[in-house]
Amino acid sequence: MANPVLVEVTRGNIVESTHRGSVIVADADGRSVLEIGDVDRIIFPRSAVKAIQALPFVESGAADAFGFGQREIAFTGASHSGEPKHATLAAEMLDRAGLSPGALECGAHWPMGQQAALDLARQGKVPMALHNNCSGKHAGFLCTCQHLRIDYKGYVSAGHPLQEMVRDTMESVTGAPHSIESCGIDGCSIPTYSVQQRKLAQGFARMATGVGLGPKRAEAAKGVLEACMAEPYYVAGTGMLDTKLMEAAAGRIMIKMGAESVYCGAIPELGLGIAIKCDDGTVRASEVMVAAVLAKLMADDAELAGKMTEFANPVMRNWNGIEVGRLRPTQALA
Amino acid sequence: MANPVLVEVTRGNIVESTHRGSVIVADADGRSVLEIGDVDRIIFPRSAVKAIQALPFVESGAADAFGFGQREIAFTGASHSGEPKHATLAAEMLDRAGLSPGALECGAHWPMGQQAALDLARQGKVPMALHNNCSGKHAGFLCTCQHLRIDYKGYVSAGHPLQEMVRDTMESVTGAPHSIESCGIDGCSIPTYSVQQRKLAQGFARMATGVGLGPKRAEAAKGVLEACMAEPYYVAGTGMLDTKLMEAAAGRIMIKMGAESVYCGAIPELGLGIAIKCDDGTVRASEVMVAAVLAKLMADDAELAGKMTEFANPVMRNWNGIEVGRLRPTQALA
Repeated sequence: MANPVLVEVTRGNIVESTHRGSVIVADADGRSVLEIGDVDRIIFPRSAVKAIQALPFVESGAADAFGFGQREIAFTGASHSGEPKHATLAAEMLDRAGLSPGALECGAHWPMGQQAALDLARQGKVPMALHNNCSGKHAGFLCTCQHLRIDYKGYVSAGHPLQEMVRDTMESVTGAPHSIESCGIDGCSIPTYSVQQRKLAQGFARMATGVGLGPKRAEAAKGVLEACMAEPYYVAGTGMLDTKLMEAAAGRIMIKMGAESVYCGAIPELGLGIAIKCDDGTVRASEVMVAAVLAKLMADDAELAGKMTEFANPVMRNWNGIEVGRLRPTQALA
Repeated sequence: MANPVLVEVTRGNIVESTHRGSVIVADADGRSVLEIGDVDRIIFPRSAVKAIQALPFVESGAADAFGFGQREIAFTGASHSGEPKHATLAAEMLDRAGLSPGALECGAHWPMGQQAALDLARQGKVPMALHNNCSGKHAGFLCTCQHLRIDYKGYVSAGHPLQEMVRDTMESVTGAPHSIESCGIDGCSIPTYSVQQRKLAQGFARMATGVGLGPKRAEAAKGVLEACMAEPYYVAGTGMLDTKLMEAAAGRIMIKMGAESVYCGAIPELGLGIAIKCDDGTVRASEVMVAAVLAKLMADDAELAGKMTEFANPVMRNWNGIEVGRLRPTQALA
């Protein structure tokens, strides 16, 4: 059974392309309030679970020990656009832990934000690992290693004590097995584990409510989500949807994209977690999906729901600024 | 009925994303030798039909009158990467017709090729209409207007005599109606008409064989296809799949991508035309589809088919160069 079409791309009066996917919104006990498509399938959450991967950084005491606040905590859960402020913060965090950018094992790539990439080129520079969209997460990993006096070399490998901590945390929060058979390598070289989509939503509901996490982890989870909501620029960047969504929701929604069109997030006031996967891996489609789901979940707040509906129905313009089409959620998401 | 999954994206041992689509390969009489999925649906061919849109440039005598050869003819059928050679050729063509780059109505965008975009930024420059991936096609349009002494102002609009010529040509070659109801606006602002996928394959088979085109158009069609195959760099650019496919096939295959993951093309020696559409508009998937279809069609030539199979199974590496997954055609395409 194919997942339903959740997003249509129009040109003129015609549907030009379509995107299928699955959506689940669930509470901390795994009871779903919204289910579309096959949410029992396993998916790679990729960067959408960075908030969970950031827990050891807080729980180990590393964040406190180095004097980090919400900005740095949010940044360890970021896929950032590689703007100067992002690269600088990554370098500062490393410096605080007595490390240089050379310790980063995420690899270098041109900033994800086009403007940031062009600005860097204009200055005659080349990208460094600091510009990697995952450099905040990696800075957090390295700070955790330093704080715990673990040799950080090879910290990206599945067998490294740091990655074992991250894996155990993921497994415990989501309740889903994270086995070596289900493991792939992520863009930034750390292990990424494929898990049941349903469990990701439940995991984020646990992050939001603390249910089933124990008091210490519950506090850390609350801290990470609050940090992301307080510093949305440091979770993504200028013009990035995640930043816009969290800014619009002003502390009420935590949301995070992952590569290959995944979204995870939480709405603490509702005690709900969200997990979305567009089958084909296209970012534009998962962005429409998440905005449409948030509009639905926040329906009681007409103004906020209205903003989310706008994000769910972006206009596509060509190089002359002429409207050529739109993205829109289908009836299945409405 | 959903179209079948034609491409899988793997990570580790797991399928992370999937792409659906439809494929037709047909002869000039519309008899199909390969049909997958719903090929009776209408699709926007976008830039995949630039070779047909280039016919008026040749048929009007404009190409000859301005002394243009295969390079310029190929370039009028291009979606180029905006490298200096491309921008220069567009400017030269306009100059030959007594026009400046200011006559282009395609809009400006950063070169499609990342390297070209970064190089431009590094030089402190901003993109012009000459860098638009469609500037070759637009240069051809403008040269045609000048040669025919048609006022070129507004040449991108559906009602303009030049666009009427292009529309009539498209309709005549494909045999599909090109009505105002089926019309959208393309990225470069010209009209794009949605037509039955089946008719696009037949149209390209006619381009390749001349069947049903009449002697003058048959000659022009042969000339355009031969020009594209002779100058594949000027149809796309460095590192672009269309250039690689046509270079590998050395004059035996003409192939052209279109936005939203369309491919059209022809294999003259087999008298066949090809039309491919990936449902979700993703470039990577249509690239795998077209390479897999070409491998199938050229199976008699083991070496060429082998090269096409390689293009159909690209390895995905992360920022550290580690293999993280692959793209691969499914059984439905094998």
